[in-house]
Amino acid sequence: MSAAPRERRMREIISVARAKPARFRDERITMAHGAGGKSSQSLIEGLLLPALGDEQLAALGDAGLIDVAGSSLALTSDSFVVRPIRFPGGSIGDLAVNGTVNDLAVSGARPLALTLSLVLEEGLLASDLQAEIEAVARAAQVAGVRVISGDTKVVERGHADQMYACTTGLGILDERAALSPAGLVPGDWIILSGAIAEHGMAVMLAREEFALEAEILSDTRSLWPAADALLAAAGADLHCMRDATRGGVASALNELARSSGVGAIVSEADVPLAPAVAGASELLGIDPMYVANEGKLVAFVAPESAPAALAALRAVPGSERAAQIGVVAAEPAGMVLVETGFGGRRVMDLLAGDPLPRIC
Amino acid sequence: MSAAPRERRMREIISVARAKPARFRDERITMAHGAGGKSSQSLIEGLLLPALGDEQLAALGDAGLIDVAGSSLALTSDSFVVRPIRFPGGSIGDLAVNGTVNDLAVSGARPLALTLSLVLEEGLLASDLQAEIEAVARAAQVAGVRVISGDTKVVERGHADQMYACTTGLGILDERAALSPAGLVPGDWIILSGAIAEHGMAVMLAREEFALEAEILSDTRSLWPAADALLAAAGADLHCMRDATRGGVASALNELARSSGVGAIVSEADVPLAPAVAGASELLGIDPMYVANEGKLVAFVAPESAPAALAALRAVPGSERAAQIGVVAAEPAGMVLVETGFGGRRVMDLLAGDPLPRIC
Repeated sequence: MSAAPRERRMREIISVARAKPARFRDERITMAHGAGGKSSQSLIEGLLLPALGDEQLAALGDAGLIDVAGSSLALTSDSFVVRPIRFPGGSIGDLAVNGTVNDLAVSGARPLALTLSLVLEEGLLASDLQAEIEAVARAAQVAGVRVISGDTKVVERGHADQMYACTTGLGILDERAALSPAGLVPGDWIILSGAIAEHGMAVMLAREEFALEAEILSDTRSLWPAADALLAAAGADLHCMRDATRGGVASALNELARSSGVGAIVSEADVPLAPAVAGASELLGIDPMYVANEGKLVAFVAPESAPAALAALRAVPGSERAAQIGVVAAEPAGMVLVETGFGGRRVMDLLAGDPLPRIC
Repeated sequence: MSAAPRERRMREIISVARAKPARFRDERITMAHGAGGKSSQSLIEGLLLPALGDEQLAALGDAGLIDVAGSSLALTSDSFVVRPIRFPGGSIGDLAVNGTVNDLAVSGARPLALTLSLVLEEGLLASDLQAEIEAVARAAQVAGVRVISGDTKVVERGHADQMYACTTGLGILDERAALSPAGLVPGDWIILSGAIAEHGMAVMLAREEFALEAEILSDTRSLWPAADALLAAAGADLHCMRDATRGGVASALNELARSSGVGAIVSEADVPLAPAVAGASELLGIDPMYVANEGKLVAFVAPESAPAALAALRAVPGSERAAQIGVVAAEPAGMVLVETGFGGRRVMDLLAGDPLPRIC
């Protein structure tokens, strides 16, 4: 494509991206609706939100906020259906704790307590269940949260896949936090807390569907220390954080660009990526920007405080490779552009589905 | 059996009931572990609690309590896997809201907010999902709670059964409440808020596995108005409440007798029961005392305040048939005895499993 038609095509895509909230037109639920991309967006915006209609839900943050007796609390819930339940670097028990703790952390809420609700498949080995409960307990201890309530259901063989876990996290909003999914401002640095795509790739390789061996460990961990460091260093100049889970960094950036009505310009060469993950991505033909992380966040920081925020983040274990990967711009509103290593620019859109289903 | 051997057998059962916390010895999870009876108890006490080890969890209340900035909050989580998802009188959407609201209510906590986390089966009709989300919204409105956060996952066809829903409720402890699962005192009236076994029977008949037709509707509803009325009428004389869900009134009484170290003496003739439910129970050979309710609670009230509490309860819609069904006694500690219509007494033990799996 020569420059002029490419420019025209990009403008067409941009005009679509600026359109109204997604509509839901499908007759049946498909795997794509759970993948964190465009189909998920249409399910949420086109069906779930109109039917539920709560303003907090409509704000689409990672956690719902509620004021109780003078305290601002955050509440967030996630179901985990990862397959297989164990993978290099972690298991469903770790994910269930860290995933929920991280939704609180990127909302600027200090995690306090969790609930754990299990759906077990008849025939599950008791030793597998015990191992996962112990993983929950260890991860909760590391994250500094208590598991204070629980529930267990059992369904017949074939009506679940070993086990599903739903965790809900309660946190208290940190006084330093002034975050909003609509808070991105042109000029903000886009900071990524470390190398991407490790969790999704680790789970994918654990399925052994590909003749590919690589030493890739899930990055599952609590992001509260990273969030805490950013809040301390940048305060109100920290405009937004998001953990880059389902759909990867690309989906997190797209959602926030859309809700803030700004553009995000990402420099591909600045995105940290381990060589093993880069190699596996290339062999599988999957763009690592769309692959899930379970211990990485993107942060949007006003330029005055951004260098200090980045330095503070790099001092946190697990975030040593934090980097500025781009900048917020006024245009193209609601979209993400990637600057490739060769000086070109392309749109990094939401995917319709996900190349890697059930990674969390 | 003549009187003497029967008495001996009862003493044997009593000595077993007084034994240590249940141990978990099974190699695999079975349906019985999710049924709310003895097997569930052994899973919870023998595996989950030792691995998690939080004092709040170990207290085994319906909700976990946590102090945040001077407020006492309650947090409770439940997964719903009812089959079929719709049944006379309600659906999984109603259950998911009311079941969680009720765990807060019987803990003496005013429900404030919910999260909703869904696991959807690939192929689920969008219209079925929409109907359930609308049911959630309606039930939440009636119960006076907001749904402030959510999550959706999709699993492949065959890895769920249409849909599972996990709801978590946040509530604030009512200042009038002085409740404890260990709070039963000899002499307390045992008050039941209405007729039993309607939910479990409605779901069972909806499965059409039996050639039996009866007009039985699930009793699913918010119990906060009932709890509120009891708190207003009895204050600190209200020693404990519990919603009689999985395992029915029999299981709720057994759990509380055990955790309080007291006996519960129930008069069978005083337990409210609709004629259609009595008939269906008899035909199916199921004791309605073990069948799940989704809008009934048992309350334990000091005798001084019990008549006023009962009168207040009867003024609440849905609790018009509230009745005293028994009394707390010092002996037999940890057990429930039923006085039959013929003047006899028998032990009403926990069942090992449940005659009606997946009713919530």
